Parts: sequence; C-alpha cells; structure tokens
Amino acid sequence: MPHHPNSNDPIGVFDSGLGGLTVVKELFMSLPEENIIYFGDTARVPYGTKSRETIIRYSREIVSVLLKHKVKMIVVACNTASSLALDVLQKECPVPIIGVIDPGAKKAALSTKSKKVGIIATQSTVKSGKYAKRLKDFEPKVHVISQPCPLFVPLVEEGWFDHDITFRVAKEYLADFKKEGIDTLILGCTHYPLLRKTIARVMGSKVTLIDSAREVAMEVKEILGAQKMLRHDRKSPEHMYLVSDEPEIFKFRAVRFLGTSVKNVKRV
Amino acid sequence: MPHHPNSNDPIGVFDSGLGGLTVVKELFMSLPEENIIYFGDTARVPYGTKSRETIIRYSREIVSVLLKHKVKMIVVACNTASSLALDVLQKECPVPIIGVIDPGAKKAALSTKSKKVGIIATQSTVKSGKYAKRLKDFEPKVHVISQPCPLFVPLVEEGWFDHDITFRVAKEYLADFKKEGIDTLILGCTHYPLLRKTIARVMGSKVTLIDSAREVAMEVKEILGAQKMLRHDRKSPEHMYLVSDEPEIFKFRAVRFLGTSVKNVKRV
Repeated sequence: MPHHPNSNDPIGVFDSGLGGLTVVKELFMSLPEENIIYFGDTARVPYGTKSRETIIRYSREIVSVLLKHKVKMIVVACNTASSLALDVLQKECPVPIIGVIDPGAKKAALSTKSKKVGIIATQSTVKSGKYAKRLKDFEPKVHVISQPCPLFVPLVEEGWFDHDITFRVAKEYLADFKKEGIDTLILGCTHYPLLRKTIARVMGSKVTLIDSAREVAMEVKEILGAQKMLRHDRKSPEHMYLVSDEPEIFKFRAVRFLGTSVKNVKRV
Repeated sequence: MPHHPNSNDPIGVFDSGLGGLTVVKELFMSLPEENIIYFGDTARVPYGTKSRETIIRYSREIVSVLLKHKVKMIVVACNTASSLALDVLQKECPVPIIGVIDPGAKKAALSTKSKKVGIIATQSTVKSGKYAKRLKDFEPKVHVISQPCPLFVPLVEEGWFDHDITFRVAKEYLADFKKEGIDTLILGCTHYPLLRKTIARVMGSKVTLIDSAREVAMEVKEILGAQKMLRHDRKSPEHMYLVSDEPEIFKFRAVRFLGTSVKNVKRV
C-alpha cells in the first residue's frame, strides 16, 4: 500500500542512542508545532565502532519501525548512519529522508573565508570521508582537516561539559587545527554541541563552530515548507520516544540532552 | 543430546567486545596448552549501559554458540554479564561456567588487612552491587567503597595508557579512595589492567591492586585441574576468535590487548 503522508503526521528522528536528541532539541525550537517520534537504538549503541553492513541493517530496521508510525519525513540524526547508510536508505524510503552530514557541510562551505575547514567526529565518521567529500562538492577549493575525538562522547556522558579535563582533552585534539589556521569547525557528532563552550574556549572567537544539529533542523523546516507539509493544527504537538532497551535509563539520561524531562517513552 | 566434554575440548571465553582479551592473555600465560575460543560481541558492545534483561538474552545466545563449539568450560570475561547474567547462566549451562567477579572478590578479601577495599568498575557493574556483596560473603567485616570510572574504557581504547590526561582522570576518580585509606583496590573491569601502571602511580605502592583477569585465569586452572580436565596433548593449541561484527576491526584492535597479533577470526 502506498504511503500518503499528510502534514499532521510526525517527523521521525533516529540515532544509535541519545545523541540525536540534540537534533530533537533544535526541532523543538525551529518547529515547535510538529509532532515528533524519536527512535534511540539504545540496545545496540554505539554505531561508531561497527561495520557499514551492520549499520545499514540496523538503520533499515529502524526506518521500517518509523514508517509504521506514519512519519512524513525522517532525519537520520546519527553521523555514523548518515555517513554509511543514508545513500542506501534514500533509494528505498517512500518519504523524504535526510542526514546530518549535508546541512553541516553546506553551512561550513558558505561560512569559510580562509577555505580551511576542520571537522571533528567519531572515528568511523572521519574514516568514511563523507564530510570532506560533501564539503568539496559545495566548495571545490576547500582544504579539509579531520580529527577523530573518541573521548568527547564519554566526556559528555560523564557530564563533564566544562570540566578542566575536558578542556585539556579538547586542547590535545584541536592542536593541529590551531596550527593550520582553520576559520570554520564542524561539530560532526550529535554529542558535541554539549561541549560547544569548551571547544569555543580552545579555538577562540575567530573560528566559526558549525552545529550539525541546528543546521539539520533548518533543513527540515525548508523541505517541509517547500512541500507544504508543515503542521498547522490547534492541538498541542505530541512527542514520542521509542527505545530498544530499558525506557527508564533513557528517561534518566535524556534530560541532559534536552534540558527538559521526557514522558511517553516506549520500548519496541 | 547430553554434552560429554573431554580434556582436549577448548575453553570458551566471552565478552561484549575486546576487554575480555585481558583474560585470554592471562590464560595464555597460566594455561599455555589449552585450546581457546573467544567470542567478542562486537556488534552489540558495550553491555555496560544496557538492561539486565537485554544482557541475559545476549549472554544466552553467546553461550549456545560456544556450546556448539564443544567447549569444556566457559568464562564470562565481562564484568557486566558476570554481574547481571551469571546466576541465570549457571542454572542452565551443562559445563562449568564462571565469571570475573568471584575470583577478584575472593582475592581481595584475602589480601586486605585494613578491611577497607575499593572497587572501580563500569557504572552498571557498580550499580549491580555484586562485587560488594561477594566481598562481604568472603569477609563479613569488610568496608567496601565503589567508584564507577566511565572514562577509563575510552581512554584505554584511545591507547592513552600512560598519558598525562589519564593520570589526571585517575586522580579525580580515585581521590575518595585515598581519603578513606583503602589498602586493596579491585580493577573490576577487563579493560583496566591496561591502566595498571597509571592507577598504581595514583594509589601508591601500599595499595594492592587486584587484577580480576589474572584471578579468573587462576580459578580456571584450579577447576580444570580438580576435574582432571586440563589438556595434555602434543599438538600445539588452537586459538579461535568469533566476533559478531567485522573481523578486520577486531584484529586491528586486539593487538593492544593481547600484545600479539591474532589470526583465525571469524564472523558469526
């Protein structure tokens, strides 16, 4: 049966765990009227150390769950899945599906004047080369420097956003960027916006930080607007969270990402 | 069909990922003639953030894979699975199955003179309270202090064993132990033996570090010896590694844990 989404249908968002909630938070701000269904694959998190084949399989399973919930659009709010699985998903998915790579890459290409752009991300996102490739598509003259920062996610999960140790780890990871003179830095992992202040302190005010979560929320707004699919309903919007592991752990940890508590968490 | 193990059958060892290889390394040293099959659940690592129910389901699946390979004994070389699933597995498993908690707890109970013992582990191992409970079984007068150290695993995986940042993180995590005057500290996670030097530097020479991986290898030797199930064969032993994700990633990363390269890695 063909899928006929209408404007009241929810936006589906998924991630390997909780990081994608930074995208949900941005959607709350730019599209406060939208219904949102978030899927966090908490039983199989993280994706960053897994193979392409495994990531594609997991992502397909999640997309089919979201489609059963009649989403009108899907955001792959996971950099690893966006790097490794989005092209496959886009061929199969009956509703618009976008990832977090393109919006961040596009914004960075527009922002850089020195044509030197830095990217920080997980090991697998850096290894995929997708950010660098898309940046060059948007701005062929750009010189791209990438740096995996595997300790940033655990530091966020420890809640050490402004901790002195986090500052020192950031100084170590970001040292080459300072030497190379980049003027734009992409936060290429959904956890990183929570370290924005510390990263800004290391990089200084002359470097523009590109927050992929924010850029992807803007892109969702543009796409739904162009398709006349923005929700206009007097009823207040509904937000639902689906997880593959224990809902209570998710609830407890989600507050840190959303800045507000979540209800309506279901295990699937 | 009943399972009739013989002494030439392999020892099965499993973990959520690579950490359990520290147990394999200790088995190589104390039981160099044994055949070993290691299962690393690399597609679903880590277990530390998942619920008891999920951990039990995953562990059962792995035990049944190992039994198909005719293992004569199983070591749950994962602290999370040992804490949350071992009691269930022991009721079902037709061959001896031991975890990493008891051997470490027993050794610590024997070692402490001040009767103040510290435990460092992942969040979920600490939360399970299993180490503290078993310590009190072995030594009722003991005072137990536990500290989750969620950054230690990523620091090991980053390879920062002796890094200055690792020393500072350790100082922060271990500060309360120093105040409390413990004389024995259990390294309650299979990754932590790789940080032994840094932890010893923080704690000083008067504190005995208990390495669960080493203790569990001693226990395996005792059990197999008592059951006359130690291998005596002129052929050199075989070591096989089963993983649930990409074998190449496992091979690349295993070297850090074993200090030697691995062959014979298969995906199941």
